[in-house]
Amino acid sequence: QETGSTSIQAADSTAVNGSITPTDKKIGFLGLGLMGSGIVSNLLKMGHTVTVWNRTAEKCDLFIQEGARLGRTPAEVVSTCDITFACVSDPKAAKDLVLGPSGVLQGIRPGKCYVDMSTVDAETVTELAQVIVSRGGRFLEAPVSGNQQLSNDGMLVILAAGDRGLYEDCSSCFQAMGKTSFFLGEVGNAAKMMLIVNMVQGSFMATIAEGLTLAQVTGQSQQTLLDILNQGQLASIFLDQKCQNILQGNFKPDFYLKYIQKDLRLAIALGDSVNHPTPMAAAANEVYKRAKALDQSDNDMSAVYRAYIH
Amino acid sequence: QETGSTSIQAADSTAVNGSITPTDKKIGFLGLGLMGSGIVSNLLKMGHTVTVWNRTAEKCDLFIQEGARLGRTPAEVVSTCDITFACVSDPKAAKDLVLGPSGVLQGIRPGKCYVDMSTVDAETVTELAQVIVSRGGRFLEAPVSGNQQLSNDGMLVILAAGDRGLYEDCSSCFQAMGKTSFFLGEVGNAAKMMLIVNMVQGSFMATIAEGLTLAQVTGQSQQTLLDILNQGQLASIFLDQKCQNILQGNFKPDFYLKYIQKDLRLAIALGDSVNHPTPMAAAANEVYKRAKALDQSDNDMSAVYRAYIH
Amino acid sequence: QETGSTSIQAADSTAVNGSITPTDKKIGFLGLGLMGSGIVSNLLKMGHTVTVWNRTAEKCDLFIQEGARLGRTPAEVVSTCDITFACVSDPKAAKDLVLGPSGVLQGIRPGKCYVDMSTVDAETVTELAQVIVSRGGRFLEAPVSGNQQLSNDGMLVILAAGDRGLYEDCSSCFQAMGKTSFFLGEVGNAAKMMLIVNMVQGSFMATIAEGLTLAQVTGQSQQTLLDILNQGQLASIFLDQKCQNILQGNFKPDFYLKYIQKDLRLAIALGDSVNHPTPMAAAANEVYKRAKALDQSDNDMSAVYRAYIH
Amino acid sequence: QETGSTSIQAADSTAVNGSITPTDKKIGFLGLGLMGSGIVSNLLKMGHTVTVWNRTAEKCDLFIQEGARLGRTPAEVVSTCDITFACVSDPKAAKDLVLGPSGVLQGIRPGKCYVDMSTVDAETVTELAQVIVSRGGRFLEAPVSGNQQLSNDGMLVILAAGDRGLYEDCSSCFQAMGKTSFFLGEVGNAAKMMLIVNMVQGSFMATIAEGLTLAQVTGQSQQTLLDILNQGQLASIFLDQKCQNILQGNFKPDFYLKYIQKDLRLAIALGDSVNHPTPMAAAANEVYKRAKALDQSDNDMSAVYRAYIH
Repeated sequence: QETGSTSIQAADSTAVNGSITPTDKKIGFLGLGLMGSGIVSNLLKMGHTVTVWNRTAEKCDLFIQEGARLGRTPAEVVSTCDITFACVSDPKAAKDLVLGPSGVLQGIRPGKCYVDMSTVDAETVTELAQVIVSRGGRFLEAPVSGNQQLSNDGMLVILAAGDRGLYEDCSSCFQAMGKTSFFLGEVGNAAKMMLIVNMVQGSFMATIAEGLTLAQVTGQSQQTLLDILNQGQLASIFLDQKCQNILQGNFKPDFYLKYIQKDLRLAIALGDSVNHPTPMAAAANEVYKRAKALDQSDNDMSAVYRAYIH
Repeated sequence: QETGSTSIQAADSTAVNGSITPTDKKIGFLGLGLMGSGIVSNLLKMGHTVTVWNRTAEKCDLFIQEGARLGRTPAEVVSTCDITFACVSDPKAAKDLVLGPSGVLQGIRPGKCYVDMSTVDAETVTELAQVIVSRGGRFLEAPVSGNQQLSNDGMLVILAAGDRGLYEDCSSCFQAMGKTSFFLGEVGNAAKMMLIVNMVQGSFMATIAEGLTLAQVTGQSQQTLLDILNQGQLASIFLDQKCQNILQGNFKPDFYLKYIQKDLRLAIALGDSVNHPTPMAAAANEVYKRAKALDQSDNDMSAVYRAYIH
Repeated sequence: QETGSTSIQAADSTAVNGSITPTDKKIGFLGLGLMGSGIVSNLLKMGHTVTVWNRTAEKCDLFIQEGARLGRTPAEVVSTCDITFACVSDPKAAKDLVLGPSGVLQGIRPGKCYVDMSTVDAETVTELAQVIVSRGGRFLEAPVSGNQQLSNDGMLVILAAGDRGLYEDCSSCFQAMGKTSFFLGEVGNAAKMMLIVNMVQGSFMATIAEGLTLAQVTGQSQQTLLDILNQGQLASIFLDQKCQNILQGNFKPDFYLKYIQKDLRLAIALGDSVNHPTPMAAAANEVYKRAKALDQSDNDMSAVYRAYIH
Repeated sequence: QETGSTSIQAADSTAVNGSITPTDKKIGFLGLGLMGSGIVSNLLKMGHTVTVWNRTAEKCDLFIQEGARLGRTPAEVVSTCDITFACVSDPKAAKDLVLGPSGVLQGIRPGKCYVDMSTVDAETVTELAQVIVSRGGRFLEAPVSGNQQLSNDGMLVILAAGDRGLYEDCSSCFQAMGKTSFFLGEVGNAAKMMLIVNMVQGSFMATIAEGLTLAQVTGQSQQTLLDILNQGQLASIFLDQKCQNILQGNFKPDFYLKYIQKDLRLAIALGDSVNHPTPMAAAANEVYKRAKALDQSDNDMSAVYRAYIH
């Protein structure tokens, strides 16, 4: 049943000696959101030659000051670079970026490499791989586990699948942006694994919010609850950070609530495709929908807390 | 809204120098289950004088060999000891132990101390406190967060509430059995906090099982999923141990599945009492019920996994 | 597996000829809420001799004008009547009524009959049956399916279990208050069946509210949705009436929201006791809890709608 | 917020006098499944000229014996008929039928009429309407509420939206196949309304199954439960028929389980698109997924019962 996916964990030399040998290939990067921004900074910092493009062009300015070149369209970036990475919000955005006017596909020629780092469903990424490959391009999916802080710190966990040679060509890039990377075999595996990871994270986040609100409405100290949890075996950076967000009422996005809801939706659909019940994710999804209805989409996922108190 | 619960974290001297000064009070202990057994061993190891009683008397033998005395009934233990601890399975057992024939209440006289370490609801523990106190006894609730391994290691987290002086009198005992202890104010607070902690744990356990099964049915490696999770901010001892259980198909109980389901049920009832929705706990509870119907009650809580694959 | 419950459906002569022959036994009635009020009116209308008692005495006035006698305490009613019915809100109220000061039990002597029509759990009603019978009394549980309107119209559906002779002695009373009655065997069966009936009703009510709100937020006419449903095989009086309530924003209680939530909670506990998952009821229960938090407890169950729009 | 959808309920003359005046337009019909078969029979019976096509051609034989003509491809049917109806399983099938090789679109010319009776999502039907109209065709969506029996009996409830003139041109057809029809305004409204209707139905079906199994595992008679429900205000044809299926263990499909699950999935997605929580539908969906995993896809939706007993 398993795909015999080779999981390769690349050691991260940056963690060891603070430097890597950057590839001399020209790198393109499409999409400068919460994740993309940190990634591009780290690519530049580690000496890569990067051409950037973003839907709203102003976001490019900062990176141009840091040494990036400006691409005018996705097609142009792809045609002038050797390896183009992209990191956008959802399946529709990922498709539009490739298939739309002046899109990635217009720039693909034999040998051009495209690495999609967006978190999407397996069908979408498989479809994109096919069109890229049918034009002679090489394709790798490489969604990342993490958040804005980890992106800034170059400590993302990268899940890659598709063209194994391309994965290796991305080595210095992945070292610049990530703590470690996994190669999971054929295209679609990384998408599936990523959705499962985010499903676990999103469901746990809802559980944390549920616990903290239940403490509050029953007259218990939320801070003490966190202290107790931090002393036990559930203690994790995620638990601590998300509880801190809630305790401080600080929902500045590290990972957009709307995106974790999107990932839950896609994970539920993944379960649906194989007739596998996911009642925890289904319950969590409903809570996040309520949070979205309460205008929390652009807050951090921890703002799901607000669905419990309104 | 908060009860101004003083949360006092007692430093654990055993962790520092491997020894403590045991109280010279005579200690009683009722209930030698997964948790009680480790606790009594540690009390004895740290030099306490302990009289034990268990519903099935054979379980006492081991501890008598280690130096414990045998009590014939709960009433006898209470009347011959200064401080009697109890750790039983659920609200009904906790009530029966106190109110039943030859029960704790028969041994309570002014000055006698009773510490209930069972995880029960706030109503039950409040009722027990009242009857103990009405006979001149002193009462402390002190449920523990942890599992068999942590109990054996003397690394439990103790949540105490009720008689503050008694909490202090238990100091050497709590140091023997625990990593740290919290004093949470009036009786009922520890029960509520404990249920919330276990609700978070039980819901997260179901989420973990859901993620691992979804990996399996979609052809992904469960081991790789664990590797990825262990690299991210969700990494925790709990996550790792419970995934290991599932990967190895080893469901030897560290924390009985039937007890985490009981705790979920009580936590949901706690939410119900204040009209607070707990959809994640409600979803988790249904999964655990299925696991119980599949004969997993006496396995570890991680056996909730089996509810997803049958 | 089945209890071989004899289900006996008594024909309702009132429906046929508008009259019945009332028993000459003296009837007591405790609890004049939404249901009790209609029942007592119908008992009086059909010529029964009725002594009434209610926690707040003023509610008795109306019935005294209609010919009822006033009882001062439950004990007095029981000791002066042959058969005493009771219809109160929940397990706690049902127990207090029997076991409390000047309660039912104080009036029970050999031969006295007690019929509890409250919707409670099987444990509670079994416990009450035992204490009544242990004093020589006769016991029947007889919860009713219906609402205020049906109670007023003498069209309740009565689920009885316990003392078969007493069931027969209640014949004219049941004809006065009900459309039909079922005898279900030993005590506890009627409680269980009643909870299942109300679980189905409560879950369906939540589903109806979910459908109507989804229509609204997607720009569809709620009236047209009802028209369509009324043309299909789902059409029922319940569906139509509850949708009308929502369309008119009229939530005058026909069946208190807080009581259907209580019934869902007890039905879930019933499932819990046999390790049977009830995910629909669990989901519904969470929605009703939200409705209660929105102050809808004393509105009709259809006010669960408000949990979906806030 | 509402779309001011005109809901027009066409009186059904067949119910009155057993005959209608069939349109003289040439009718095409694509898709002879559970629903399509009954519809075509009734179209023929009422004197319409019908050309049929089905993916597996053998199913056409019966109708050819009844007087239908055989179309070789969807394109051919559309190009030789005035109004072509289609009724297929899901969004993918509906799209393939129109956009695939020798598909509907190949036969569309100015004036050609296409009526899609499949239950799909609003996006899909809107997309199909656009391509049909962009070729000069006229488009009506007309999903139906009902099941195989109602289809055979010509008693479906038709929800139509789109081209109002085409709706009127379909008058004799709709009278032949349905009990009544609603015109709901612009394309997409009928899809949304249909999904909401089926969401209510699918969730209620799960609730019914949950109630019947809870009766069984607690030792109550399922037949008696049905008798009680049939006496109350919940009584409906749907409730009775589905309970009968379960009591008899007869799950011959009247409405495929896999299709009601598909409709729940699409209804949840509809809620998702407007950030509207649908916790009942989400819970039901999980139960149906379990039923599908237990090989109940091609049984009647009432086979969701089996998810509760395995």
